[in-house]
Amino acid sequence: MESLYIIKIGGNIVDNPVLLTTCLQAFAKVKGQAILVHGGGKMATSMAESMGVQQTIIEGRRVTNEASLKIVTMVYAGYINKNIVAQLQALGVNAMGLSGVDGNLIQAHKRNHDSVDYGFVGDIDTVNTNLLLELLSSNTKLVVAPITHDGKGQLLNTNADTIAQSLGTALASKYKVHLMYGFEKEGVLKDVNDPSSVIAHIDRPLYGTLKDQKLIFEGMIPKIDNAFEALDNGVQSVIIGKAEKMNELMNGTSGTTITN
Amino acid sequence: MESLYIIKIGGNIVDNPVLLTTCLQAFAKVKGQAILVHGGGKMATSMAESMGVQQTIIEGRRVTNEASLKIVTMVYAGYINKNIVAQLQALGVNAMGLSGVDGNLIQAHKRNHDSVDYGFVGDIDTVNTNLLLELLSSNTKLVVAPITHDGKGQLLNTNADTIAQSLGTALASKYKVHLMYGFEKEGVLKDVNDPSSVIAHIDRPLYGTLKDQKLIFEGMIPKIDNAFEALDNGVQSVIIGKAEKMNELMNGTSGTTITN
Repeated sequence: MESLYIIKIGGNIVDNPVLLTTCLQAFAKVKGQAILVHGGGKMATSMAESMGVQQTIIEGRRVTNEASLKIVTMVYAGYINKNIVAQLQALGVNAMGLSGVDGNLIQAHKRNHDSVDYGFVGDIDTVNTNLLLELLSSNTKLVVAPITHDGKGQLLNTNADTIAQSLGTALASKYKVHLMYGFEKEGVLKDVNDPSSVIAHIDRPLYGTLKDQKLIFEGMIPKIDNAFEALDNGVQSVIIGKAEKMNELMNGTSGTTITN
Repeated sequence: MESLYIIKIGGNIVDNPVLLTTCLQAFAKVKGQAILVHGGGKMATSMAESMGVQQTIIEGRRVTNEASLKIVTMVYAGYINKNIVAQLQALGVNAMGLSGVDGNLIQAHKRNHDSVDYGFVGDIDTVNTNLLLELLSSNTKLVVAPITHDGKGQLLNTNADTIAQSLGTALASKYKVHLMYGFEKEGVLKDVNDPSSVIAHIDRPLYGTLKDQKLIFEGMIPKIDNAFEALDNGVQSVIIGKAEKMNELMNGTSGTTITN
């Protein structure tokens, strides 16, 4: 099977033009099939502020009200997505930007909580695998914005990490999928204060040991749990590290690779 | 050859949710291949105002400065495009939204004038016909936003009428292309004050006669001249009328059809 890299870059990259360019240059060098999933960054928040749109935060999570949804649709699926694609085209990459609504790529439903209404936030139901296979087979590199829809005309704001994982799972039977999460650290660190203490490879037994020894800091646990969930769903490897070192993350000279 | 309808809807439709829904319902009924090209509407202007972005108008034309480009990219390629696609998906149409940068669909260059700098406005150089053929062959209905790029990373604001015409010309050797321009009138009128005086069919000899008799009002002349240019470039027919009567425009019971 052919390899497919699904690379998620977060808001810290999107917000920083220099880092973003470094990332896109690395992405342009990826041989073979690749999908870039981007998050949002601070632009949506600053736009909301400049337009006087009220932001509601419940239990640390932003509520996507109608005005916020409008803004994230514009910023994520419009400004960020099209600028990334334009930069990739300039680097000679045949890139195409899509949101979850395009070609019914990702259908979701509005999140239901008994207690809290997070507004127009979508939890993913289905991924249009055939569309992905068709586009990838024509050597198009896809750039996916974290906006989905419910099939009834409603757009929904959806977590970019979850989108990357869902695309990976959907394609796991057709490609050797490598999921890569770019974040602000070098990888999973043995010592949070020592950037050189990257653990190059984690498998399930080692993860158990590291957790027992309390050597994995708390924020990393959900990330690694999600990684193992993806692996259980057929993904080959999950790689965590600095997004701008994409090429090194791929050849294993940087970051942490997680396998089952 | 199979027929292909390329339908342009203007700002007056995009700005009016009821008219837009009527249009999209008509578009959903189009049998066979179809591309919808949408304009911008007033949302970009009102957003610019609410964000305090200065609008410059030179000789009646808006200058697309950097801040305006950011806004039109967000509004046209983000908000409007994705909402149209979501509504079409809800109507059971396999729709995909694209801007000119996606898959290098439409490459343009920044307009050069000796006297006036209109800013980030693009004049079209190339259309990626192969991409269009590939997507149309999988029965995808395309929704195109009027944003193009220069191949060097720069997005450009581009006239939606011109985009519709360029797509039509690019596909004229593969499809019987019918270009349809939705606007606020019933069609080309013999008497501007009488909406029932629609001229159902105009060909070149009749156009000459109507111009000689000064029966065609001034604003229509550039539209009809462009129509004949499209026909000279292989387009089968150009249809002008009310966008919400799309299905009637297609079967010739409404609007004006222009042929060579």
